Amino acid sequence: MPIADKYFPDEPKAPHMITPCPGPASKAKLAELSTAFDTKAAFFIADFYNSLGNYICDADGNLLLDAYCQISSIALGYNNPELLKAAQTKEMATALVNRPALACFPSSDYYEILKEGLLSVAPEGLDRVCTAHTGSDANEMAFKACLMYQATKKRAGKPFTQLELDSVMKNETPGASDMVILSFTNGFHGRLFGSLSTTHSKPIHKLDIPAFPWPTAPFPTVKYPLEDHVEENKAEDERCLKELDHVLSTFPHQIAAAIIEPVQSEGGDNHASATFFQGVRELTKKHGVLLIVDEVQCGGGGSGKMWLHQHYGIRPDLMTFSKKMQNAGFFYHDPLLAGDRPYRQFNTWCGDPSKALIAKAIIHEIKENDLLKGVNETAEYLYGKLEEIREKYSKLVLNLRGKGRGFFIAFDMPSAEIRDKFLWGCRQKGLNLGGCGDVGVRLRPGLTFGKKHVDILVGVVESELSEMSNH
Amino acid sequence: MPIADKYFPDEPKAPHMITPCPGPASKAKLAELSTAFDTKAAFFIADFYNSLGNYICDADGNLLLDAYCQISSIALGYNNPELLKAAQTKEMATALVNRPALACFPSSDYYEILKEGLLSVAPEGLDRVCTAHTGSDANEMAFKACLMYQATKKRAGKPFTQLELDSVMKNETPGASDMVILSFTNGFHGRLFGSLSTTHSKPIHKLDIPAFPWPTAPFPTVKYPLEDHVEENKAEDERCLKELDHVLSTFPHQIAAAIIEPVQSEGGDNHASATFFQGVRELTKKHGVLLIVDEVQCGGGGSGKMWLHQHYGIRPDLMTFSKKMQNAGFFYHDPLLAGDRPYRQFNTWCGDPSKALIAKAIIHEIKENDLLKGVNETAEYLYGKLEEIREKYSKLVLNLRGKGRGFFIAFDMPSAEIRDKFLWGCRQKGLNLGGCGDVGVRLRPGLTFGKKHVDILVGVVESELSEMSNH
Repeated sequence: MPIADKYFPDEPKAPHMITPCPGPASKAKLAELSTAFDTKAAFFIADFYNSLGNYICDADGNLLLDAYCQISSIALGYNNPELLKAAQTKEMATALVNRPALACFPSSDYYEILKEGLLSVAPEGLDRVCTAHTGSDANEMAFKACLMYQATKKRAGKPFTQLELDSVMKNETPGASDMVILSFTNGFHGRLFGSLSTTHSKPIHKLDIPAFPWPTAPFPTVKYPLEDHVEENKAEDERCLKELDHVLSTFPHQIAAAIIEPVQSEGGDNHASATFFQGVRELTKKHGVLLIVDEVQCGGGGSGKMWLHQHYGIRPDLMTFSKKMQNAGFFYHDPLLAGDRPYRQFNTWCGDPSKALIAKAIIHEIKENDLLKGVNETAEYLYGKLEEIREKYSKLVLNLRGKGRGFFIAFDMPSAEIRDKFLWGCRQKGLNLGGCGDVGVRLRPGLTFGKKHVDILVGVVESELSEMSNH
Repeated sequence: MPIADKYFPDEPKAPHMITPCPGPASKAKLAELSTAFDTKAAFFIADFYNSLGNYICDADGNLLLDAYCQISSIALGYNNPELLKAAQTKEMATALVNRPALACFPSSDYYEILKEGLLSVAPEGLDRVCTAHTGSDANEMAFKACLMYQATKKRAGKPFTQLELDSVMKNETPGASDMVILSFTNGFHGRLFGSLSTTHSKPIHKLDIPAFPWPTAPFPTVKYPLEDHVEENKAEDERCLKELDHVLSTFPHQIAAAIIEPVQSEGGDNHASATFFQGVRELTKKHGVLLIVDEVQCGGGGSGKMWLHQHYGIRPDLMTFSKKMQNAGFFYHDPLLAGDRPYRQFNTWCGDPSKALIAKAIIHEIKENDLLKGVNETAEYLYGKLEEIREKYSKLVLNLRGKGRGFFIAFDMPSAEIRDKFLWGCRQKGLNLGGCGDVGVRLRPGLTFGKKHVDILVGVVESELSEMSNH
C-alpha cells in the first residue's frame, strides 16, 4: 500500500481551488499579521489544522498539493498521525515545559532519545552528535568545532599565552583566530554572521552585512543532459578540483575546514559528480583540512538515502543537519571536536529534547515503513515523466537534473520572470512549488509523496507549460 | 496564597539529599551519554519527570532547591501544571508536527498567538516582533536589522550598485558592510560569530574563533555598598559615558547599533545606574546609532518588571529576548527594521509556533497571578536576609548587589576557587546555584520562588559559609 494511503486515508484526492492563491481570507489575515510581524515574503496563510498528508490548506480553504513542504522541512506530510502521537506523549509535555540547559543538566532520557533517534541514522563513522537549534546554528557550531580543533592541535598541549588571552578580549589576533573556513561558489550555509560568510547564493542574501574574508573554491557547473556532455563535465570537475588544490595550497591563512552541500539547494539545485566529491575529500585530507558536509536541506531521506552524500561514498569529518529532521546539529567522531575543555562549545540550551523526540519519531517511521525505498521508486517514476515533459517543452524546461538522487530533482527556465510566472501559475492550479537560484524550479516533496501525487504534479506542470507556450 | 502553594501543592518541603551530587546514578548516566554527546560541562543528570516547582530532582533521587533554573530559563518552576496544560493542547500538537516556514507560510493562528502572548508584553513603543530561535540568534538578527536599516537610509532610495552586487559575493566591501556593532566591556550577547564579536565576558568564550574588529565602550565598574560610594560611582558613570561619546564620535567606521544588557549577567552580574543607561540612550540618539537592549537573560519578569530596562525609564530601538520566554526574538517599531524588501531578514523557520504557545502560556500566568508583585516582595525579603549574611561573613561575601532589581541579586567571593567550592558545597546541601564572571554568585530563581524558599536558601548559604569560615 502506498504510504500516503496508510497514513492519510482521508487525504484529498486532488487539489481543490476555491479562490486565487492568496485569496481574500489569506490577504485579510496577512494584512492583520503585517501590523506586528513581517509578511513581505509570504505566499499565503497556511491552515495547518486542515492540511493533511501531501496537501496544504490555505486560509481560504484552497487545498494545494505541496511539493515545497515548508522549504523542504516537512518529512512525513501534514498532521502525520504517528507524529501527532509522538507530540502528545508525557515525554513531549515534560520536554516542552522543562526545557533543559543540556550541557549542564542533561535530562535523564536524553541518551535514549538520541540513541533510538538521531544516533541510529548517524552516517558511517560519525558516532557522536552535537545538537543545535537551526541549520545555520549547526553550521556555525561545526565551524567553531573545527577552528578550536585545529588551534588545539597547533598549540600541542601548550597553555594559552597571555597575549592570546588579552588580544581575544579586543577581538584581535592571535587570541581571535585568523584561520578561515573555505566554502564553494553558489553554496548556501545559512544567514548568521559566520554562516553567511560561507554563503554565496545571491547578493540579496548578503548585502550590507559584514563578512569574514574567507576563501571560496569553484563548484562545478554541470552541463545537461549528462550523456551529451561527458567530456566537458569531466574537464569541469578537474578544473574545479585543481583550483581547490591551488586555494588549499596557497591561501595565506590556515584553512580550518571546508564546507560543502552534497547538492547546492538554495543556490540553484546544483548537482556535482561523485568523482568531484571524492576529489574534495581527498584534497581536504591531503591538506589537513576538515570536511563538513552540510545536509541541512539534503538530509533526511529525500534523496533516497538518509544523507545525500552517501550517494558519493565519501566520509566527511562532520555532517550538519536540520530541516526534515526538525532537530538541528552535527555528527562527528573525534571527541576533540567537542572542545578540549568545557564551556568552549557551549550555549544555554545546546539543543531541545522536544525536537529530539520529533526527530526520533520521524526516523522511526522512515525505518519502519522503508520510506527510502518508496522515495526511490516514486522519484524514478517522477523523473521519467519529467523527461517526457522536457522533450515536449524543451524551450521552457532546461537542465533537468537529479536522476538517481531521489526527489532532489530540479530544472531551469529561461528567465527569472518566466520561472516566477510558472510557479505562480502552478499555485493557482493547486500545486505548491518552490524556486531556487536565479531560474530554478526545485521539487521538494515529503517522503510520503507517491505515484498518484506524481501524476497530479505532472498534470499541473504540463497544463501550465502548455498555457505558457500558447501565450 | 504564595504562588508555589497554588501551583505545586505537592512540592517538597525541603531539599532531600541521598547521595553526593552528582551521585552514582548521575555518574553512570553521564558516562553513558558521554559516549555520544559532550558532557564536560555537566553538573548532574536531571530527572525532569520527578522535578516539581522550585525543586529539581537528579538521577539519584536527590531533590535540590533550584535558584539557577537551567541558566535562568525556567520561569514558572518545573512541571508547572498550567504549562503542562498548554503543552497538551491540539494547538501545540499541530504546531509541533507542522512546523511552518513562518515568513513564507505563516500559520492561521500565529497572529492570535503573538497578540495574546509576546505582543501583550511588548515594551512601550516597540509594537512589532521578529521571532527567532535562541538568544544568540535573536541578537544577530537584530544586528542584521540595524545594519540593513542604516545602509538603506544611507542609500536613500538608490539601487544597489554593480560594485556592491559583485563585491558582496566575494565577502568584500562595499557590498559586504564595513559598518560595526558597538558593545560594552564584560558584556555577553551569545556565541555565534557575530554575537561572539560583541561578547567580552571571558577569554575562554572567545579564544580561537575569528572576530569582527568591532568597537567597545566601558561598562561602569560600580563600587558597593552603593551608599558608601556615591561620588566615586557617579564619576565612573561620567567616565564611561564620556568614553562612549568619544568612541561614537571617532570610530573610523559607521556604528550601526550599540548593544547592551540591562544587567551584565554572564559577565559577572554587573549592574549600572539608571543615569548611565539614560546617558547611553541619549548618546546613541545624538550619534544616530540604534540601541539594542539585550534582555535575553534579564527579561521575563525575574527583575520584578517584565523587562529589566524598564527600571531605567529608557526606550531602546530594539529589544531582544529568549530564555524565560522560551521563545526568542526581538521587538521593534520601525518597519524598515524588517528590511526594505523580502528575503533580506529571512531564514527557514523564522521562529517556532510551539515556542510561541509556551511563551503565551507563561505570559498569561505572569499576568493572571500578578507574579511580578510576588517577585518584588520575595526579592526584598531575600535581599534583606543576604544583607545580614554579608554583615556576618564580610570576608567571604563581597559586593552584594541588585537591591530593587527583583531576583537579579548577586555577590562576589574572594576568589574563583572559593566561589567554586561554595557552589559545590551548597549543591551537596541541596541548593543549586550558578556562578558568573570570575568570582560571582548569581541568584536566578523562577518567578514561583517564595519566602519559604528564601528561608531554605539562606539557611544553606549561611551553613556553607559558616563551614567555610571554620576551615
